[in-house]
Amino acid sequence: MSIERVHTYINAQRDYFLEAWKRLVAQPSISAQNKGVRQCAQLLEDIMRAAGIKTRRFETAGQPIVYGEVRSDRPEALTLLFYGHYDVQPPEPLEKWLSPPFEPSVRDGRLYGRGAADNKGQLLPHVFAVQAYLEAVGSLPINVKFVFEGEEESGSIHLPEFIQENRELLAADLVFTSDGPMHDSGAPVVFFGVRGILSVELVLETAGQDNHSGNKGGVIPNAAWEMVELLATMRDESGRVTIEGFYDDVLPPSTYDLELIAKLPYDPDQLAQVFGVAQLPWSKEEFYRRLTLEPTLTINGLVSGYTGPGSKTIIPGRAAAKLDMRLVANQDPEDILAKLRAHVARHNPNVRVIHHGHMFPSRTRADLPVCQTVVRAIRAAYGREPLVMPALGGSLPDYVWTRLLGLPSVGVPYANADEANHAPNENMRLDCFFQGIHASAQVIHELGQTEGA
Amino acid sequence: MSIERVHTYINAQRDYFLEAWKRLVAQPSISAQNKGVRQCAQLLEDIMRAAGIKTRRFETAGQPIVYGEVRSDRPEALTLLFYGHYDVQPPEPLEKWLSPPFEPSVRDGRLYGRGAADNKGQLLPHVFAVQAYLEAVGSLPINVKFVFEGEEESGSIHLPEFIQENRELLAADLVFTSDGPMHDSGAPVVFFGVRGILSVELVLETAGQDNHSGNKGGVIPNAAWEMVELLATMRDESGRVTIEGFYDDVLPPSTYDLELIAKLPYDPDQLAQVFGVAQLPWSKEEFYRRLTLEPTLTINGLVSGYTGPGSKTIIPGRAAAKLDMRLVANQDPEDILAKLRAHVARHNPNVRVIHHGHMFPSRTRADLPVCQTVVRAIRAAYGREPLVMPALGGSLPDYVWTRLLGLPSVGVPYANADEANHAPNENMRLDCFFQGIHASAQVIHELGQTEGA
Repeated sequence: MSIERVHTYINAQRDYFLEAWKRLVAQPSISAQNKGVRQCAQLLEDIMRAAGIKTRRFETAGQPIVYGEVRSDRPEALTLLFYGHYDVQPPEPLEKWLSPPFEPSVRDGRLYGRGAADNKGQLLPHVFAVQAYLEAVGSLPINVKFVFEGEEESGSIHLPEFIQENRELLAADLVFTSDGPMHDSGAPVVFFGVRGILSVELVLETAGQDNHSGNKGGVIPNAAWEMVELLATMRDESGRVTIEGFYDDVLPPSTYDLELIAKLPYDPDQLAQVFGVAQLPWSKEEFYRRLTLEPTLTINGLVSGYTGPGSKTIIPGRAAAKLDMRLVANQDPEDILAKLRAHVARHNPNVRVIHHGHMFPSRTRADLPVCQTVVRAIRAAYGREPLVMPALGGSLPDYVWTRLLGLPSVGVPYANADEANHAPNENMRLDCFFQGIHASAQVIHELGQTEGA
Repeated sequence: MSIERVHTYINAQRDYFLEAWKRLVAQPSISAQNKGVRQCAQLLEDIMRAAGIKTRRFETAGQPIVYGEVRSDRPEALTLLFYGHYDVQPPEPLEKWLSPPFEPSVRDGRLYGRGAADNKGQLLPHVFAVQAYLEAVGSLPINVKFVFEGEEESGSIHLPEFIQENRELLAADLVFTSDGPMHDSGAPVVFFGVRGILSVELVLETAGQDNHSGNKGGVIPNAAWEMVELLATMRDESGRVTIEGFYDDVLPPSTYDLELIAKLPYDPDQLAQVFGVAQLPWSKEEFYRRLTLEPTLTINGLVSGYTGPGSKTIIPGRAAAKLDMRLVANQDPEDILAKLRAHVARHNPNVRVIHHGHMFPSRTRADLPVCQTVVRAIRAAYGREPLVMPALGGSLPDYVWTRLLGLPSVGVPYANADEANHAPNENMRLDCFFQGIHASAQVIHELGQTEGA
């Protein structure tokens, strides 16, 4: 069977794949510091071209997007779009790295370096799977497209515009993203959505300065008290958000979502230990529903007045609260922001609402045939049952595919759970990297068995 | 009349008084840093002895207390006890001083230096008034005692013990303290009490670390939310404290208190500007009742999670709130602390209550004859009507006299309103200093006209 030849080729080419991966990691591409990003785009294009992929660079108002394409001979072939990002997080604090972040180093079966896992070691498997297919078989059973952006770590700010301006170029049957970690147990994960996010800050000034709590205590307002009282109007005793209309557009979980949840592992004692909390009082269904299918309103930070050691007798003149809301389908961050503003204006019109940013939630129906095919391919590639999540608790710009283009989108992390992404000593296990190449090849293969739309 | 001779003597000795004041300010006495305090006690004793006062030093577990006494010839004489402190606040930040804090410097009719006003320039007038009396008249019409402590800026921690161990030595008819500023208008102030204070900190840990607001959002507790919700149970919408039993022991204001308040000046627009707030919505009576005769619950500081620029998507594992309560007669800080602990335990038993310290409130009946005599003496000394306050909004260890010894106690600030106490460029106007000597002499004189108990 042709897919066996592909896997054999992948095994034979490990040295080349590892060297290319190291070259890509060695090239800094820190979007937040505009450091080396364009050089990295060029290097990535070189690697893709060497793999037999036709590439094209799209300029944006920020960093370039590397687009790639390989068409199948089969007229009825499906089209799969691989999304990834070649930019990386800043490597600081440098003194915590055991080897320099941009001098990739293999130790104990892992490649260490900034971007090793997030996301260079997870986008290259798609490239090398295509290379292996082309070399071992001569052609692809499906059309493949690549969108690799250089600003994901800076909020993907120019991605939506690129997508809207290139709708036809990006036409596809499924979007496939590898990012984040596999399960702690080493089991593969497949997810079909993410929660959105709305980040805001509430700021209140009640006086031009802090005042003495004795000499003025009782006759002037206290910014800390007013902030506490405003926040307290936003949640009830059970933790349910009381901003008017907050839940209006929340979709109830489907029967299929609940079936998927029922199959997930759940060890509340072990999780409580990982999270550092006393206990998790939820049933498995409650846990996963709350984590992935229900919205949150989180205070990320709160500050007012004196916060040093001991006491200081002041009435704070200023208070600030940072909040994020994780939103679920079909909540609209812009609508929720308007509802928050209305709530704040009603309860304390002196509080300013600063909008830090937002992403829409994204959901793909996990029971679509293409989605089922991916699950099958991942099961075959890893030889074990994947954990299929209706959605992740976190947020990714997945909505650009599902909302802007109306495409189904699936996520399959390739990195080990202890990848240390965004942290010093980021790393990816070599076996996870090679396994990822096999997985991408298997997905291409299985989708090639399916009939096109 | 003998008091005229006293005032004449004071005017003639200005150079000597100023030099002695400068010598005392030049001697550092920073109790918080244990710097020069004992040397300052020695110098103060020297100045007092030179004034004709019999002194005695009392050792405590901390800094020494300088005690002084001059007895009158008159068997029926009243006894007046002057309280003050010779220790000072740390002078930092040094770079903000126009002249070094311990090199007293006269500029524009003010003496600049740490302790110039707080409290060296306000305790010396009592000493020099006695000196003037003894030199100009030969004897005092009343008995005078002095208690000058060296730890007021560190919380007067050993003063109560000293007082309780020396009850007979300290027997008196009235305690007189000069500390703090006169009114902005330059009018003298007489006050007959202070609010007490209870300082606490609430600390909550819900997790061993901050957690990701996406990957864990909805399934683990949030320390910031829980702190907000706990605090919100402590106050109602009108700002009234809802800790059970908080107001149980609050004395309603007497008719005389309200008469005093009716005579005080009140310019809410001007005050709002000083406090840096939009407006003061209170009537005069509300303003002074709230400021001096009613308790407060103030959030001094609040901190949880991420407080830097921009946003950070975390669920804080820890939150802390610093609170102070200004207490009024007859609230007992220890009782209020117990009520707070009970309230916290009922609403969130995971919150720790840390006790930072407390002082009892203090009240003296302003309509006592000795109190009226002081008001008359201050009116005569300054040639204008003093502002007579039932109590100050702030807190001083006045309770040691009223509560531990059962003595009436009166406060008369001698320093200019812009004394900058506790701040760089602390200063006291020379005319305020000399006027203070006249005022103390006048108080001694007028009390000498009264019959002893």
